[in-house]
Amino acid sequence: MIIVMKKKADERELENVIKWIESVGYQAHVSKGIERTIIGAIGDERGKVFLKAVETWPGVEKVMPILQPYKLASRETKEGNTIITVGDVKIGGPKFVVIAGPCAVESSAQLMEAAFAVKKGGASMLRGGAFKPRTSPYSFQGLGEEGLKILAQAREKTGLPVVTEVMSASDIELIESYADVLQIGARNVQNFTLLKAVGQAKKPVLLKRGMMTTLEELLMSAEYILASGNDQVILCERGIRTFETSMRNTLDISAVPVLKEKTHLPVVVDPSHAIGQWKFVLPLAKAAVAVGADGLLIEVHPDPQNALSDGPQSLKPERFYQLMDEIESIAKIVRKEYAEIYGAH
Amino acid sequence: MIIVMKKKADERELENVIKWIESVGYQAHVSKGIERTIIGAIGDERGKVFLKAVETWPGVEKVMPILQPYKLASRETKEGNTIITVGDVKIGGPKFVVIAGPCAVESSAQLMEAAFAVKKGGASMLRGGAFKPRTSPYSFQGLGEEGLKILAQAREKTGLPVVTEVMSASDIELIESYADVLQIGARNVQNFTLLKAVGQAKKPVLLKRGMMTTLEELLMSAEYILASGNDQVILCERGIRTFETSMRNTLDISAVPVLKEKTHLPVVVDPSHAIGQWKFVLPLAKAAVAVGADGLLIEVHPDPQNALSDGPQSLKPERFYQLMDEIESIAKIVRKEYAEIYGAH
Amino acid sequence: MIIVMKKKADERELENVIKWIESVGYQAHVSKGIERTIIGAIGDERGKVFLKAVETWPGVEKVMPILQPYKLASRETKEGNTIITVGDVKIGGPKFVVIAGPCAVESSAQLMEAAFAVKKGGASMLRGGAFKPRTSPYSFQGLGEEGLKILAQAREKTGLPVVTEVMSASDIELIESYADVLQIGARNVQNFTLLKAVGQAKKPVLLKRGMMTTLEELLMSAEYILASGNDQVILCERGIRTFETSMRNTLDISAVPVLKEKTHLPVVVDPSHAIGQWKFVLPLAKAAVAVGADGLLIEVHPDPQNALSDGPQSLKPERFYQLMDEIESIAKIVRKEYAEIYGAH
Amino acid sequence: MIIVMKKKADERELENVIKWIESVGYQAHVSKGIERTIIGAIGDERGKVFLKAVETWPGVEKVMPILQPYKLASRETKEGNTIITVGDVKIGGPKFVVIAGPCAVESSAQLMEAAFAVKKGGASMLRGGAFKPRTSPYSFQGLGEEGLKILAQAREKTGLPVVTEVMSASDIELIESYADVLQIGARNVQNFTLLKAVGQAKKPVLLKRGMMTTLEELLMSAEYILASGNDQVILCERGIRTFETSMRNTLDISAVPVLKEKTHLPVVVDPSHAIGQWKFVLPLAKAAVAVGADGLLIEVHPDPQNALSDGPQSLKPERFYQLMDEIESIAKIVRKEYAEIYGAH
Repeated sequence: MIIVMKKKADERELENVIKWIESVGYQAHVSKGIERTIIGAIGDERGKVFLKAVETWPGVEKVMPILQPYKLASRETKEGNTIITVGDVKIGGPKFVVIAGPCAVESSAQLMEAAFAVKKGGASMLRGGAFKPRTSPYSFQGLGEEGLKILAQAREKTGLPVVTEVMSASDIELIESYADVLQIGARNVQNFTLLKAVGQAKKPVLLKRGMMTTLEELLMSAEYILASGNDQVILCERGIRTFETSMRNTLDISAVPVLKEKTHLPVVVDPSHAIGQWKFVLPLAKAAVAVGADGLLIEVHPDPQNALSDGPQSLKPERFYQLMDEIESIAKIVRKEYAEIYGAH
Repeated sequence: MIIVMKKKADERELENVIKWIESVGYQAHVSKGIERTIIGAIGDERGKVFLKAVETWPGVEKVMPILQPYKLASRETKEGNTIITVGDVKIGGPKFVVIAGPCAVESSAQLMEAAFAVKKGGASMLRGGAFKPRTSPYSFQGLGEEGLKILAQAREKTGLPVVTEVMSASDIELIESYADVLQIGARNVQNFTLLKAVGQAKKPVLLKRGMMTTLEELLMSAEYILASGNDQVILCERGIRTFETSMRNTLDISAVPVLKEKTHLPVVVDPSHAIGQWKFVLPLAKAAVAVGADGLLIEVHPDPQNALSDGPQSLKPERFYQLMDEIESIAKIVRKEYAEIYGAH
Repeated sequence: MIIVMKKKADERELENVIKWIESVGYQAHVSKGIERTIIGAIGDERGKVFLKAVETWPGVEKVMPILQPYKLASRETKEGNTIITVGDVKIGGPKFVVIAGPCAVESSAQLMEAAFAVKKGGASMLRGGAFKPRTSPYSFQGLGEEGLKILAQAREKTGLPVVTEVMSASDIELIESYADVLQIGARNVQNFTLLKAVGQAKKPVLLKRGMMTTLEELLMSAEYILASGNDQVILCERGIRTFETSMRNTLDISAVPVLKEKTHLPVVVDPSHAIGQWKFVLPLAKAAVAVGADGLLIEVHPDPQNALSDGPQSLKPERFYQLMDEIESIAKIVRKEYAEIYGAH
Repeated sequence: MIIVMKKKADERELENVIKWIESVGYQAHVSKGIERTIIGAIGDERGKVFLKAVETWPGVEKVMPILQPYKLASRETKEGNTIITVGDVKIGGPKFVVIAGPCAVESSAQLMEAAFAVKKGGASMLRGGAFKPRTSPYSFQGLGEEGLKILAQAREKTGLPVVTEVMSASDIELIESYADVLQIGARNVQNFTLLKAVGQAKKPVLLKRGMMTTLEELLMSAEYILASGNDQVILCERGIRTFETSMRNTLDISAVPVLKEKTHLPVVVDPSHAIGQWKFVLPLAKAAVAVGADGLLIEVHPDPQNALSDGPQSLKPERFYQLMDEIESIAKIVRKEYAEIYGAH
């Protein structure tokens, strides 16, 4: 950590800071510049609030951290990519992975139709919500365990592993008994109780970035899961909130290469929730492949017009098939190069 | 709900939309303008996703909701102010209320000293965290039940009711047995499982706005609690996330009068978390009184330099005393007028 | 325009609004719902503030505009794509166009080397700043007319048309005498004096979106140029400002398809300014092709390490060559489809 | 400037950076920590891009500036407050100053009525736009020189000095011949050509913060004016753009104390443009006094309903009178303390 002293800080103020740094177990390394004296506090700064406290001391202008606050999620800790295996599917490896399905499980008929469609299109996994986080208490909240059972049936029929959302620590055991990957939704990205709980689960976790979450905070949320014992975490960019109102959220496409550099964890993109309108999902999905994501989370619904949740952003099966062809062509061009850049060292 | 048709929408497209509107139980009211035809769908639009679905239909340009999506939290439902009574304290009434104390309960000695200091300064309630949501898994996570016991002792000694944070539905029963007001933190503002659970609690809830929660979403989160049966909700503005980096968060001071117009629930302000530096907490606290908030949540610590959490933003007792004097003077000037504007009708 | 009355608005308030609407030349179309009465004001609402004024009248809850505020820039006014011809180059047509070069013209040697490099890589146009908008008055402000002369020489040697920035209306005549396309920088996107002035110029305008500009505002700024008589406008997405600090700006990749739907003007992307680091420019450039942009604006510098401006985001020539190959491969996959979606009708 | 090396940077990479630092005229001060080596580059870093260039070098993780990039605007350069004298009015001194008037000059009758009203209420200066920056080319663009003449007449009749906006460098001479203070609007805050031009003017400048300008950038824009020779600059907070849509802009009230600490220049607040609705202007104006602003810019219109620009946010005279009383009462409580904190040293 670097402590920058004020221009007019006097010797006594400087000495007080140095004494404090040493008293909490760091070495102080003083560097006198022309306009400022700065002090390097040498030691492991993570998780320590003591040093930060000097920010309000007389003579101190600011305190600047040097290290990223996450360890286990960092590429410094693990250079090669984490590849997550779910059945026959490998996420984070050379193959681009598509996870598709409806926003919510509405009925057995709807899910089966969707499941067979996404399988036909070439998707590797099936998504569908049984427990739905909805902004309004008056909206459809999901089928609950009944939905989980339908998902498990769809897996049986299609062979596709299943991803579904967990909203509460007390539901994890139940959901784990049906699903293959536990999804943490954007609104729970800093629900630390839930993060710790899925950190003790046996199944991989798909962690969605919140609308307001910086990449550093996302990695800190992943760190909660990793530090609790579960090293199978997939990160998902799904759009952030900005001043722009002509689309639902702003897909932060740059998050993909920036995350790939910072972390060994796989990164997927959810364009459906980001943009909220199916016709814009198509170009964004292609951009996600081109930018180097490891996979996509896409909403496909056999009858979007009658969907109970997020119909406007769901693709009809035939549009999904066409998209999958283009995705494959772009992946061929870019995946090899990205594997070299981010690949096993 | 208003459906705006595209300029070139043809008669068949218009008729399809009208038929759909009527088929889901609304009346369609068509209005042909010079450049656009618009259709009013008359009926209660809340919680219904069906109408929204036409957004992607041929010929439809956009769908605009007319009603706010919340009911119970709205001033239309209840004109007079909700006044929340906690012991002798009334929040939302004519008196300006200050809730003060340290960020985290660290020890019995620390909390007792803080509690007596805030009481001496004139605070009405004591705050302090026993369960702490921290961005980093390596930071101090709170004393847990031990912290709750210390809070309860402080209440016994000072007579001040106690506000403390709830992070998990499974902790509510425990926390209710010690605390007087249950706080929902900013990061849990859309943890719907938790909102429903405190909606079934007996104690009032202090609901903090998230860093990127719109006022409408905040009111929808309050609606979750109200709809679950708990009508004792206090809203708290605590700074939002913006592009500006010279302060921790941007205190959205305008949220106070805008909320007071939209809802009957009391609104308090937490300048300490918003700005993150004690010297700026002082002017912001005065601004919060002047703008018409019903109260303040302020961090006071007997020894900020050694605080385990958020030391830089905590006031020393003597600064708190002086602030309380100024708050009282400003409250005298403005409270009466605000009571007339927002008061019982 | 739609005027939504308050739930408790009485008949007299409703009549006052209707009378006003009619008095300013519109027809009022009343629609009584269960909870609200809404009034459609039929007529051309653009540029009229009179109707907006009723927003503060007794009984009025809100006023909602129906039409977009721009006309000439809208696809409703012109369905086919605007194709802008600069020498042999066509922007907005089937071919993907790359405009490349250094941030600033620093010397004849530097620009010539850059110009030959970007030509070798297959760029269609040369970019380079002679007048530089810099946040700090102490930073390099550009070579001015000397820089323009160097740009003109480079065009002569390479045959590449030249794009350069205009910062002031009084410089337009001078810059037009040297350059082929006039660039308006992000910070001048709402410098209306300058927009009107380039609207009277003879050369095409490349209009960059501001860091804070909504797509609607960007189209309004284009409208200023179009309405002043210049119909040759290229829009450029270059990153917006958000809460995320791990990159310079957030490239709003979704802006491309959303703009392509709203307007007939060509849309290009500048990933270099958006992300600020050359290694991330590579994946973002590929994403821009995949998402359907008409072209790219990319910084290439023969010696980024010694660049006087924006070195860290500039590509070395050899990296640019490799990128151009990948861009071409992706363009082959996606351009034809986008031409069908957005193409001439 | 601090250069942080990567964990795995080797000796050769470190030496390359050190050599470079020394070659561009700085001293390198190396500090080896447990996980990172950091290098302090000692020297005046302002306006130098050379050091920044090492950001992309092998082995370098990041480059962190230590000094603020502005000098003349900094309290380090000038400790006492800058007090700006306009006629009898002093801005930045002990007295709180109110600048009021209509958004646009519409006619002699309208402006005279407004001018006498604001004088009656106790305002110290008159505001009114003759050249209006409007998002739409179809909106009322102001009366131009005719408007300036009307403003000058109002000054003659009321004795109030006049503030009006400058949109173009070529208008400065004309406007200076009529007005007392030159206003730079939010959209021109980084129009560097204009900033340099008003830097050479003789009249004080009221510089509005842009909707997405950081405080550091605002101070850099002030620095442009100061560095061009005009040391009479008043800063104005007028709301920033955020994700929140229930108000026009988010008034960044914290900007006031943060700016007062960083700079010696006076800081005023414009609540009218921030919030956009007159009823919310009242509480925000009071908050601005309480937080320590030096003054207010408020829109007052004799007939807001028929205003050609920004009617909904304008106060009627009688509401303005009442507000002025409350402002005075709050100013009495807080001004003295703020004068002590920020006052002459």
